[in-house]
Amino acid sequence: MSAFEFQVEQSRGRARAGRFVTPHGAVDTPAFMAVGTLATVKALDPEDLHAMGARMILGNAYHLHLRPGDELIRALGGLHAFMGWDGPILTDSGGFQVFSLEGLRTVSEDGVEFRSHLDGSLHTFTPESVMQIEHNLGADVIMQFDHVIPGQSDESAAGDASERSLRWLERCAAAHARLSTDDRSPQALFPIVQGGIHAHLRRDAARRITQLGDWVGFGIGGLSVGESKPDMYRILEVVDGELPEDRPRYLMGVGFPEDLVEGVLRGVDLFDCVAPTRMGRNGAAFTRDGRLNIKRAEFRTDRRPLDEECDCSACRRFTRAYVRHLFVSDEILGLRLLSLHNVHFLVRLMRDARDAIRAGTIVAWSRDWLARYHTRPVTTE
Amino acid sequence: MSAFEFQVEQSRGRARAGRFVTPHGAVDTPAFMAVGTLATVKALDPEDLHAMGARMILGNAYHLHLRPGDELIRALGGLHAFMGWDGPILTDSGGFQVFSLEGLRTVSEDGVEFRSHLDGSLHTFTPESVMQIEHNLGADVIMQFDHVIPGQSDESAAGDASERSLRWLERCAAAHARLSTDDRSPQALFPIVQGGIHAHLRRDAARRITQLGDWVGFGIGGLSVGESKPDMYRILEVVDGELPEDRPRYLMGVGFPEDLVEGVLRGVDLFDCVAPTRMGRNGAAFTRDGRLNIKRAEFRTDRRPLDEECDCSACRRFTRAYVRHLFVSDEILGLRLLSLHNVHFLVRLMRDARDAIRAGTIVAWSRDWLARYHTRPVTTE
Repeated sequence: MSAFEFQVEQSRGRARAGRFVTPHGAVDTPAFMAVGTLATVKALDPEDLHAMGARMILGNAYHLHLRPGDELIRALGGLHAFMGWDGPILTDSGGFQVFSLEGLRTVSEDGVEFRSHLDGSLHTFTPESVMQIEHNLGADVIMQFDHVIPGQSDESAAGDASERSLRWLERCAAAHARLSTDDRSPQALFPIVQGGIHAHLRRDAARRITQLGDWVGFGIGGLSVGESKPDMYRILEVVDGELPEDRPRYLMGVGFPEDLVEGVLRGVDLFDCVAPTRMGRNGAAFTRDGRLNIKRAEFRTDRRPLDEECDCSACRRFTRAYVRHLFVSDEILGLRLLSLHNVHFLVRLMRDARDAIRAGTIVAWSRDWLARYHTRPVTTE
Repeated sequence: MSAFEFQVEQSRGRARAGRFVTPHGAVDTPAFMAVGTLATVKALDPEDLHAMGARMILGNAYHLHLRPGDELIRALGGLHAFMGWDGPILTDSGGFQVFSLEGLRTVSEDGVEFRSHLDGSLHTFTPESVMQIEHNLGADVIMQFDHVIPGQSDESAAGDASERSLRWLERCAAAHARLSTDDRSPQALFPIVQGGIHAHLRRDAARRITQLGDWVGFGIGGLSVGESKPDMYRILEVVDGELPEDRPRYLMGVGFPEDLVEGVLRGVDLFDCVAPTRMGRNGAAFTRDGRLNIKRAEFRTDRRPLDEECDCSACRRFTRAYVRHLFVSDEILGLRLLSLHNVHFLVRLMRDARDAIRAGTIVAWSRDWLARYHTRPVTTE
């Protein structure tokens, strides 16, 4: 366990500035983790991520199992070596992906049988097989295999899924212990708190998970999957009250800039989301004043950078007019520049939040930040 | 004229090592120029080009006139500022592009009327309008508007096109003189030697162009457009014998690694081609032992870099297995890495040729290089 450490350096209200140490380096929290589903953060180079100060990134067990195969990645030295990333990596278990395959999967107590979205081939994920996959990939943090449900699921469905996730957590922990050997880089298994938008289910799940083991950190799953924002914030507050304060909390699949700020205020340390790269590929850029769509004609002659306050390598060098030209002309550099800007925007946002926590100004900082972002004079989508 | 200088530092046989000084810096020759048709070298970042030692790059008057418009680029500070490239730039006149629009263009003595490949809109290029476009773009070297014909054209067609190109050169020179003002960065107009595969036409064109003015440098056009390789090499030798030795010669649109080596041996100083980026986007990589297609199954577990002797940023970091995975998964990083590798391969090839010229070993070096490249034990396409 000593390969992993977490220290809360400062807290203000529920917000915390911390440091999460992993075998591949430390992560200052709160932090946004860029998503490298298929062993690459889409349209970016590892050097781009290093240059912007990104530390921990994600891979995905479902996608990497199907392509190129986790055994191949293991044979090639593991995910870090394969993708040329020497910083910390976290792999998601694929729970979210296989449960998204509505009509292509069958759930049983043992696991989930599903058909690949690529070629329709039949596969089975169980807590044990997913642990094997995540061990083959060799990330620093590996997520449990969980039962993910839509955000508005009723209490009965949410309760069943949460109970199953708890039972699967025990099987994941047993498999993880069996697979952990001294000759490989240590991996930390994170449990995932489920329970939908039902406060007592969330509270119960968080308590029982905490009793099940001395976890390095905790995932909070099943949010930002269709529920309302007030529901998400309310559930975060419930979970925050139950989880041990001296362990990192990772809010899975979240999110947009405003969600990150709201999450920090509710005790979250780690975030991830495909939004910055996916939106970037579609021509949307985060700015301090809301989102803009670079393809709009109004940017044709705009000499300003994407965001006048941004110090990313796109904003330091290129005008909106140039980036618009790249998008209008279907040039690949456009995809890279907007992805780079958006990921940088979230990485920097969390760095600024951390500074505000340490300076004791997080409440005022976040209020001002959200007010300005929501005013959105630039909104043009 | 003093903003441009060319010095032959060393020559061996017909091969020359030189230095071409432009208002945006010097280019050691022989050199390969990466093609940035639409104000971006496809899939690459200006930083990638700087890092690999690329110095001079291309833009295209036809494409930039249509999108985003040369007047817009001028209003935004010119092509260097627009695309964030502070090194030398050369713009092609669009002659090759408009003459490629078979069935969509009408040629007259005044110029070419054509329909845009984008939206079918009607445009007219004349020597005067093309000079205006290239002045708006503001590249260091601008090419004359010329009449380009297929590589196997007969003597009559080649002669007519060459004569027209000569007449258009005089009009380009007059327009260029009229447009050149003291308050902007100086631009050098390069004439283009045409004449197809007919030695006496080429000889005549080179002589008459030389008599028409004191040119900073010379383009050699209408090669690598369908003629045989022996024809191309023979014509290069003819032209080499006619052009002044103290001016740089630019072989337009060429080419593949072997063509560059053969060109250097025939007195060529500058080359450009879309091949490295276009082939890179299709999964083909240059190696010292010929080309390889990274998508092939045999590379699935290959831990070697694309080319074991390459020191590009792709080869220093990634295996063939990883790059293959990126291509198989349609990941954008794959396009960037292969484009980067291929352009680096040609930039480095010309650096190595230059070193060999200076060391007096160019004959043996090129013989060995070509023999090994043509053996192609890796060829897998």
